[in-house]
Amino acid sequence: MRAVAAATKGWRLLLVLSTAGIAAAGARQPPNILVLLMDDMGWGDLGVYGEPSRETPNLDQMAAEGMLFPNFYSANPLCSPSRAALLTGRLPIRNGFYTTNAHARNAYTPQEVVGGIPDSELLLPELLKEAGYTSKIVGKWHLGHRPQFHPLKHGFDEWFGSPNCHFGPYDNRARPNIPVYRDWEMVGRFYEEFPINLKTGEANLTQIYLEEALDFIRRQQARQRPFFLYWAIDATHAPVYASRSFLGTSRRGRYGDAVREVDASVGRILRLLRELRLGESTFVFFTSDNGAALVSAPEQGGSNGPFLCGKQTTFEGGMRVPAIAWWPGHIPAGQVSHQLGSIMDLFSTSLSLAGLKPPRDRAVDGLDLLPAILQGQLMDRPMFYYRGNTLMAVTLGLYKAHFWTWTNSWEEFKQGINFCPGQNVSGVTTHTQEEHTKLPLMFHLGRDPGERYPLSFGSAEYQDALGRITPAVQQHQEALVPGQPQLNVCNQAVMNWAPPGCEKLGKCLRPPESVPEKCSWLH
Amino acid sequence: MRAVAAATKGWRLLLVLSTAGIAAAGARQPPNILVLLMDDMGWGDLGVYGEPSRETPNLDQMAAEGMLFPNFYSANPLCSPSRAALLTGRLPIRNGFYTTNAHARNAYTPQEVVGGIPDSELLLPELLKEAGYTSKIVGKWHLGHRPQFHPLKHGFDEWFGSPNCHFGPYDNRARPNIPVYRDWEMVGRFYEEFPINLKTGEANLTQIYLEEALDFIRRQQARQRPFFLYWAIDATHAPVYASRSFLGTSRRGRYGDAVREVDASVGRILRLLRELRLGESTFVFFTSDNGAALVSAPEQGGSNGPFLCGKQTTFEGGMRVPAIAWWPGHIPAGQVSHQLGSIMDLFSTSLSLAGLKPPRDRAVDGLDLLPAILQGQLMDRPMFYYRGNTLMAVTLGLYKAHFWTWTNSWEEFKQGINFCPGQNVSGVTTHTQEEHTKLPLMFHLGRDPGERYPLSFGSAEYQDALGRITPAVQQHQEALVPGQPQLNVCNQAVMNWAPPGCEKLGKCLRPPESVPEKCSWLH
Repeated sequence: MRAVAAATKGWRLLLVLSTAGIAAAGARQPPNILVLLMDDMGWGDLGVYGEPSRETPNLDQMAAEGMLFPNFYSANPLCSPSRAALLTGRLPIRNGFYTTNAHARNAYTPQEVVGGIPDSELLLPELLKEAGYTSKIVGKWHLGHRPQFHPLKHGFDEWFGSPNCHFGPYDNRARPNIPVYRDWEMVGRFYEEFPINLKTGEANLTQIYLEEALDFIRRQQARQRPFFLYWAIDATHAPVYASRSFLGTSRRGRYGDAVREVDASVGRILRLLRELRLGESTFVFFTSDNGAALVSAPEQGGSNGPFLCGKQTTFEGGMRVPAIAWWPGHIPAGQVSHQLGSIMDLFSTSLSLAGLKPPRDRAVDGLDLLPAILQGQLMDRPMFYYRGNTLMAVTLGLYKAHFWTWTNSWEEFKQGINFCPGQNVSGVTTHTQEEHTKLPLMFHLGRDPGERYPLSFGSAEYQDALGRITPAVQQHQEALVPGQPQLNVCNQAVMNWAPPGCEKLGKCLRPPESVPEKCSWLH
Repeated sequence: MRAVAAATKGWRLLLVLSTAGIAAAGARQPPNILVLLMDDMGWGDLGVYGEPSRETPNLDQMAAEGMLFPNFYSANPLCSPSRAALLTGRLPIRNGFYTTNAHARNAYTPQEVVGGIPDSELLLPELLKEAGYTSKIVGKWHLGHRPQFHPLKHGFDEWFGSPNCHFGPYDNRARPNIPVYRDWEMVGRFYEEFPINLKTGEANLTQIYLEEALDFIRRQQARQRPFFLYWAIDATHAPVYASRSFLGTSRRGRYGDAVREVDASVGRILRLLRELRLGESTFVFFTSDNGAALVSAPEQGGSNGPFLCGKQTTFEGGMRVPAIAWWPGHIPAGQVSHQLGSIMDLFSTSLSLAGLKPPRDRAVDGLDLLPAILQGQLMDRPMFYYRGNTLMAVTLGLYKAHFWTWTNSWEEFKQGINFCPGQNVSGVTTHTQEEHTKLPLMFHLGRDPGERYPLSFGSAEYQDALGRITPAVQQHQEALVPGQPQLNVCNQAVMNWAPPGCEKLGKCLRPPESVPEKCSWLH
């Protein structure tokens, strides 16, 4: 079911390696898996990726002790689809996290979305159960907020966090504040029991999420059972926030304060693993759900370094994300892998670590990265850049072909909504949807990581690259069976009016009349 | 004579520290000084600064063993003035490396320039003689090519390299090929005895320059005399070149091949220092003469990472450069200094290392960086960005004020000469010279290193920053005594027709009639 033949070879290697990996991790049980997923953090936000203020000593140290991926991608330029892809190992076009309401439109899961993760999808924590893992999600779920989409119905054993973004505050009449759950029941709402001061930027949520992680790790260590911890915190998503002790400490302003708290928290987690002697038995991966939201910069958005544009776009700045693997005793220190990696690979790699095989009854886009991580191999594979149900671009090797270009509409752009502030590449950063399916715009990402110099259509280099990209795309498209689109229908009645547990808190709200309607996705 | 009062304090500290430094370096003699000066290499070209292909393992290792400066600046966005500033510790406006022929025009030293380094300037190797140093320049001199400007007349004891850029090939009738000197006499010319294949990019010049460095270090070690080696190589200046064994090895194309050879060469030099047990007695500093020449990208130009524009401009991409200090046993490994540093500081820092005081009869802009390097201090000081004799901008702390903005003229831009490819910040990257002296455009370089979001003129932050910048600029301008401009007059007759030694090689050419004229500087 894999898109390129070359990947199959990698897959077989994985089977050998995963066994080796487990053995090395300590005979009796497979390694713990810890995914640290950031929200809207950009490739250029870490010192190790060149952020000039270099305020991420813990993450830089994690990279120095582990493996850095400069060519790692989210599965989508937007939050929910990317997260659904991480947990299913499948592109959003397969798992349903897309819309067909308009061409090339991004869609996600605001409160009024009716859809969510289909029961037919197999999520990583569901599969890891077979190998005895206990799984916890801390932070943002974002795979649907209605009861049937609850993370504990999809394999997680514990949850502390929210189903949606921490937008607000709302008046709880036209729109409810987002609930915060502990396991099955809400324990409060953002801006109420869980305050976020939009004026000062103060919120202690990262500290709460940190304690949840530390506590879970300690408990699992005591139980001597393997765990999967999915730490999906959101301090770097606008409105960005930090605890009081981090506010005003960054050279980068409030966004930097949030990054500093995240960095310190990662340091705390890795330190605990070492203290509990879990370092060698815990595979840790740090990454982000999509590129920095330049539309919110500079106060509320991060940096994509030298890359073009940001979140919402299928330029490199929208989907190339920071990525670090850490597993002392297994990953040699200070490695850099040029493997083209995807957030979906965390699905397949985690299964491999657990000694499990990926489901055979469906297409899985994730690749097992263990051959790259443990043996320094480079596996050939295409990277697909979708926006909604539109295949916008593909990267194969060092070549990226754009079949469609678009940032956002002129109407939005004229209102100041800009996904490429300060950047303008003629014929590339377009405000109308430009089709290039017959003759893709092509870039060499090694010479030109910023996508500024399209290759000449007449060049031998262009022809050669296109000759290799075309069959990979055809193979992908011919085999593609799109999932049922989950993000087409909205309804005010499905919002978080009365989540389970609301009655205990006296916080149940009355939903309005049910009026399903087509969701409107602007970009 | 210093521009800001705060620096004086730093200076006194230096006197204490320089003694400590020397003592630590080994009792009897001051440390060797090795300046590795790159040509048009950008801030974003090193892995440690975030270049995605991460092809500079030796430089990254140098940073890991030493101190990285993310906020280090050249003295000018162009080659000759920057180099003159490095060796004199003085801004080009003081040492004469500027033009008054047109407003805000950059000027340098092509073959037809009549001027060069004035005798009245004191160069670092002249001063280091007092402390017993032997000095060698390897590579590009660029401080004038007429006999009175010869580096051996300005303090250097040895030279292997060229007086001008390796442009060409020329026909030796309208314009001579650039000579290559060994000490007092030319030993050939580029494209003749020293071939550069423009088609393949092959030239073994970096290997020759490397051998010159290794040989000099070995000889000085045998003599047990302190040395100053100024390794001013030019492989990354267009036309970029690399030796055969490096050609085609980079993911970044030909420019990357050149970078890889430079990186490997730096590795060789540091390895030799260690082998000869000179590591602890040699202070090494790596930097570049100006930002990457984006006008030559992507095949012939590098990367300025997240910064705006490139060489020729006074945006960050034009003047912020990579900088690494390495001195095992003195500089703790893995440090990052946010000291605002300048290439001119290499003058003052080197004198301090040698136990010498800077000249007291003239203004010196360089700051002794030893308190920053050895004690982690941060010294407040303004950074001035000139273009010709026009003060375009100043940075103080994290704030940068632009008094003038200009990239290049519409005429040039329409011909495809673009110093900011793919970048366009409205009202900032202007193609007419825009004056903002009354109300400077202001950026916060921590939140906004890419200079994309000017502060609001009405904000308290703007007023506060301007209130601190204005007196620093006034102090600078009131005390400024411009040097005699050296780059105003051109004359075909002064070109490299018959350099000393040409008769031995049978390579003397006949100069045309002497016709002095005003140099025309386009940007």
